[in-house]
Amino acid sequence: MKSSLRQESRTSGEFDLLLDLAAAKGRRSALELALRDAIRAGRLRPGTRLPSSRVLARELGMARSTVSDAYSQLVAAGYLETQQGAGTWVASNAAARPVEEFEEPAPADPRFDLRPHLPDLNRFPRTAWARALGRALTDASDSVFAPGDPRGRPELRRSLTEYLARSRGAVTSPRQLLVCNGFCQGLRLLCEVLRERGARRIALEDPCLFLHPPIVRAAGLEVVPVPVDRDGLIVARLAETSADAVVVTPAHQFPLGATMSPRRRAALVAWAQENDAFIVEDDYDGEFRYDRQPVASVQGLDPERVVYAGTASKTLAPGLRLAWLALPPPLIAAAAVHRGLADRYAPVFDQLALAELIDRGDFDRHVRKMRLHYRGRRDKLLAAIRDAAPQLQPSGIAAGLHLVLELPPGLTEAAIVAAAQQRSIGLFGLATFRHGPFEHDQALVVGYGAPPDHNFDASVTALTSLLVDGHVTAVAAQTIS
Amino acid sequence: MKSSLRQESRTSGEFDLLLDLAAAKGRRSALELALRDAIRAGRLRPGTRLPSSRVLARELGMARSTVSDAYSQLVAAGYLETQQGAGTWVASNAAARPVEEFEEPAPADPRFDLRPHLPDLNRFPRTAWARALGRALTDASDSVFAPGDPRGRPELRRSLTEYLARSRGAVTSPRQLLVCNGFCQGLRLLCEVLRERGARRIALEDPCLFLHPPIVRAAGLEVVPVPVDRDGLIVARLAETSADAVVVTPAHQFPLGATMSPRRRAALVAWAQENDAFIVEDDYDGEFRYDRQPVASVQGLDPERVVYAGTASKTLAPGLRLAWLALPPPLIAAAAVHRGLADRYAPVFDQLALAELIDRGDFDRHVRKMRLHYRGRRDKLLAAIRDAAPQLQPSGIAAGLHLVLELPPGLTEAAIVAAAQQRSIGLFGLATFRHGPFEHDQALVVGYGAPPDHNFDASVTALTSLLVDGHVTAVAAQTIS
Repeated sequence: MKSSLRQESRTSGEFDLLLDLAAAKGRRSALELALRDAIRAGRLRPGTRLPSSRVLARELGMARSTVSDAYSQLVAAGYLETQQGAGTWVASNAAARPVEEFEEPAPADPRFDLRPHLPDLNRFPRTAWARALGRALTDASDSVFAPGDPRGRPELRRSLTEYLARSRGAVTSPRQLLVCNGFCQGLRLLCEVLRERGARRIALEDPCLFLHPPIVRAAGLEVVPVPVDRDGLIVARLAETSADAVVVTPAHQFPLGATMSPRRRAALVAWAQENDAFIVEDDYDGEFRYDRQPVASVQGLDPERVVYAGTASKTLAPGLRLAWLALPPPLIAAAAVHRGLADRYAPVFDQLALAELIDRGDFDRHVRKMRLHYRGRRDKLLAAIRDAAPQLQPSGIAAGLHLVLELPPGLTEAAIVAAAQQRSIGLFGLATFRHGPFEHDQALVVGYGAPPDHNFDASVTALTSLLVDGHVTAVAAQTIS
Repeated sequence: MKSSLRQESRTSGEFDLLLDLAAAKGRRSALELALRDAIRAGRLRPGTRLPSSRVLARELGMARSTVSDAYSQLVAAGYLETQQGAGTWVASNAAARPVEEFEEPAPADPRFDLRPHLPDLNRFPRTAWARALGRALTDASDSVFAPGDPRGRPELRRSLTEYLARSRGAVTSPRQLLVCNGFCQGLRLLCEVLRERGARRIALEDPCLFLHPPIVRAAGLEVVPVPVDRDGLIVARLAETSADAVVVTPAHQFPLGATMSPRRRAALVAWAQENDAFIVEDDYDGEFRYDRQPVASVQGLDPERVVYAGTASKTLAPGLRLAWLALPPPLIAAAAVHRGLADRYAPVFDQLALAELIDRGDFDRHVRKMRLHYRGRRDKLLAAIRDAAPQLQPSGIAAGLHLVLELPPGLTEAAIVAAAQQRSIGLFGLATFRHGPFEHDQALVVGYGAPPDHNFDASVTALTSLLVDGHVTAVAAQTIS
């Protein structure tokens, strides 16, 4: 019989029990745990008779009541069975196999992160956010902690209404806003709402964010890919489909970077009006436009036809899971119902913190600061590309956190992306975002938001070296094949 | 022409513009907003020609470049159209109707809140939570703010694994845990996972929480009601169905309050094993058991067949939207995929704060404190009921935040609930939770978690007066009808 201060293995004639008698909850609990573990591990098999509480208590040097309490607990929990006069035995259904216990390692982030979807997380305003959370937690009435409106906290919907009017030209009201856990949830909810109204097909830009097509399909709708050119979504091609709604990124097409032309914006709204269709305006990075004032949202042109979708994923961080839909009035009630059926409503504290930040002007100040920050990065990146590969014409540079590099003939994005991976450069080709049958140029999507400052220059250099070397590699590969 | 420091109405020959020249963004922005508002309000109709920028600049006393910049912005946004030599006019699709702007008032909370789903929100540990959030925000690496594992933060999954083992006898691992936005989201995800595996029918206890049947149906599955008695779900009745899974509340049946008997627990697990079915154990208030140690979870009996579901909605607050599923290994990957398609992953800060709270022992201390708090309330409520209506036999009193009062013959819950509403008492009858064809007794579900301390005695008195008066009222009503 071994024993130590923390763990003792005690033998009771028939079986070993590893008892942790120093555990907080005392001897009864230790015995209960030890018996449970022995049953689970198969050391005590179904049907095995246990010693009477009197016998086991004597063997373990415990009070009899301690043992019988532990037995009672295990009977209540279904691990043991008992019958007056027949003793106590291990229950027949208690032979649970042990489950696997390993945790797979998280995939390593690339050393040079040029993926387009990430903002500079190093600039997340931790102090301001913690202060806003603290204030919100202090000021909140108790009712804030109770189940609330599926559309989200009224404080945030009020703040967002004003913010969206002044910064994005969106025409909305607290009543029409629905706070969601990121745009993906908003898209899923909208698909469910539209499906309920009879929609069958949702048009998506091709290319678009790779998350969107599976979400539309998960909601039971068909995805209709519509091509994109330098003026944004080709509305004439949309008109050839029988889509019931379309998801667009007019401020800065994702990933190609086009700003939708005025003519197309008008045609898009006209399409929706003529076809009794809805437009979902995914304004994922509308706050970041560099060379002139941001173009106002399409939603302002027809708030009855356009769902405006904004997010804090680029201005603050994706981990917040904070986004919002401005809904045409006929969709409000259904969206609230579907939110209720998905997860009821958004967690409250972060909502209150964002409302605080907006109301105090901190959010606008943060956005302005970040706009300068990203513009500086974009200019640096453009200069480096010009120096290293003057034949390349970066596009989509007017806004957002990424640009597009069309490759000259003979170069494939697959070869460059493969080479990038070997150098631990996070980089996507257009292929990642394609989901339709249309011809596309070979191009790279280069994000400049993600690297922290101390790594930004190195990331840019990693890219330019890759371009220089990649040119050679790719041509060589082509010659061989 | 009127003018003031903040707002000036200026006439330009053809139309009035309300210009807010003191606004932060300056004159260009003010003019742009004023034109946009005039178009939206219908004061500038589609097709209306605007004065040239030179003319309007002179009329408004602005620089010409200011006006032409504003025009350009509105052309880009689709409000105006322009053609070289033909001037500028209001776009034909820009005649958006204004949207409704009211906010409906929130429904008032009852003065005496005896609804069963709420904990004492006045005891939410605001200071501890703010401190934990602050620490989490300070300590977090930048990668915390990036998109993460659909199962939630590994820190929280680790903390929960240990917490669930020691407090609920659950056998799980970080790998198997999925953090969700409340149990409702967990149930929705599980339904989608099971449906994908071929499930068609989900058995629900009848009565159960009214939110659950519509969630199951929203996922495209059929709800099979199974009756409940004083030993919990009647497993023999479950066995008569062809359900592919069952949702149960073994620790404290919601709303009837039964603790599932050891025999039923064994039978339930045997049913799942024999029918290749899954059990979803909704342990919504498993932490609060008053007269003896909590009964361990059913999940521990067969972690391969039982999904354990826990929540912070009762121990902390529903507004956090924090719950968790411990998944049998074959369901993990599919659950992560469906979480990804719903809203990707849970917001990170509250997850980190809860992990902090658990790791430092603050959470267990809070739960112990609240357990004493609620036990005190339950005892007060039982004493008051005994004094006021000794003929009533409260049941379901061993655990949780509510008990059940079966009404004597001749009294209907509908009459009492209607009378409660008139007195601003939040109170449910069993009818609210019924969804099957089975006979039920007339009974009230009385929560004692919700009222803040200063209102608790008054709420209890409101109930006992209602019981006394209601007896008379109900009998009178019966005589008349």
